Amino acid sequence: MRLIGARLTTVEPGRCVIELPVRDDLTQQHGFVHGGVVGMIADSAGGYAGFTLMPADASVLTVEFKINMLAPAAGDMLVATGEILKPGRTLSIVRADVVALQGERQTRVATMQQTLMVMHGVADEKI
Amino acid sequence: MRLIGARLTTVEPGRCVIELPVRDDLTQQHGFVHGGVVGMIADSAGGYAGFTLMPADASVLTVEFKINMLAPAAGDMLVATGEILKPGRTLSIVRADVVALQGERQTRVATMQQTLMVMHGVADEKI
Amino acid sequence: MRLIGARLTTVEPGRCVIELPVRDDLTQQHGFVHGGVVGMIADSAGGYAGFTLMPADASVLTVEFKINMLAPAAGDMLVATGEILKPGRTLSIVRADVVALQGERQTRVATMQQTLMVMHGVADEKI
Amino acid sequence: MRLIGARLTTVEPGRCVIELPVRDDLTQQHGFVHGGVVGMIADSAGGYAGFTLMPADASVLTVEFKINMLAPAAGDMLVATGEILKPGRTLSIVRADVVALQGERQTRVATMQQTLMVMHGVADEKI
Repeated sequence: MRLIGARLTTVEPGRCVIELPVRDDLTQQHGFVHGGVVGMIADSAGGYAGFTLMPADASVLTVEFKINMLAPAAGDMLVATGEILKPGRTLSIVRADVVALQGERQTRVATMQQTLMVMHGVADEKI
Repeated sequence: MRLIGARLTTVEPGRCVIELPVRDDLTQQHGFVHGGVVGMIADSAGGYAGFTLMPADASVLTVEFKINMLAPAAGDMLVATGEILKPGRTLSIVRADVVALQGERQTRVATMQQTLMVMHGVADEKI
Repeated sequence: MRLIGARLTTVEPGRCVIELPVRDDLTQQHGFVHGGVVGMIADSAGGYAGFTLMPADASVLTVEFKINMLAPAAGDMLVATGEILKPGRTLSIVRADVVALQGERQTRVATMQQTLMVMHGVADEKI
Repeated sequence: MRLIGARLTTVEPGRCVIELPVRDDLTQQHGFVHGGVVGMIADSAGGYAGFTLMPADASVLTVEFKINMLAPAAGDMLVATGEILKPGRTLSIVRADVVALQGERQTRVATMQQTLMVMHGVADEKI
């Protein structure tokens, strides 16, 4: 996440927001942010959202995610918001949406559905 | 893709291979390559595989993808192979697998199923 | 849908509700409604929701869907609600949620993300 | 599965085949088998394939699946083949393909990627 310059701006129980200022080296041939980068911040926002509801001695693992690209990721900033749909003892199901901000304009660019695994006894540094 | 140092090593009709030498700045807290980076090379390998069977005046767009993480992405090199399952006039369905190489050992780390859209009349530079 | 006894109870622009009274022959060995049946009403609710915003001369085709099972589908009635996230000229992206009702209790049992294709010039009977 | 007349024809370690003779009440307005029915046999073929590698005291639960429809499901018989990609102690990842048979002709109609959960200590009847 450091690599692409993303920052965690909100972390609260079951919810997490990641902001990514758009840089030239994150865009592809048409000037839009690369789909893989959009996937990366969605995956991270979902993972952190799930992590907030896991026990202190647990870490989080992405089992799988599915992402639909809804519009080209054009703008000055991307904002990914992850929200937990169902926390569980072993698995948590999460959703994340990514919007692009350009001045006043806000466009939803992607939506993701994700399954996380709770790794008990393998504590991650809490955020 | 330049950002992470990935390179396209094979492009043939309906198939594409991308190699990613593992660098420290691509790994997360446990020393494995970040899931988002794995998703990025899978998405790209799938997209290029689909692109090889599209007409000369068309470009490719990722509609959606779904990726399962099968094992931690640990190793010296990740190799993503995209293969087209069904080319179409408007949509193409693609699969990609990612393996990690460590010396002689090869581990499948992820598998992806993807839907691509053929954008007619919006030519991309052919690879 | 007739086969399983599902009925379309709400159809409005971009939204559709399907109700399924639970019958013994829809349940599996543990007494819960079969996951495939849950998938079927979610797929249908999503498809109809997308269809409501398509032109009169078009029909709808499911490109793909991804469904997470959130809880066992136990109850007297299942209700699937499809809502369009992004209508498009060629593709529409839809979400559907399935809840189980047992007396006063309501449990979310599944959530689905779906891609639909608009088939222009192949009219379906409008609902 | 009884409801739709599907039958399990092959069960071997990590692999399962389900056959579905096409009946009129399984088809939709265009004469193709309903997508939800295709999803149901794919889900079942995947689930049984995973189940074959689970311990005797365990049962299987579908966590999620994602299915791409590749061609209209037209024919006399549908055949769904599930194969395990990665068996695990807690989760197993499976793939299933569905083909339609019409006389000599065979068409791939769907492909599915699925996550299963191993429910230890909740034995299902072994097939």
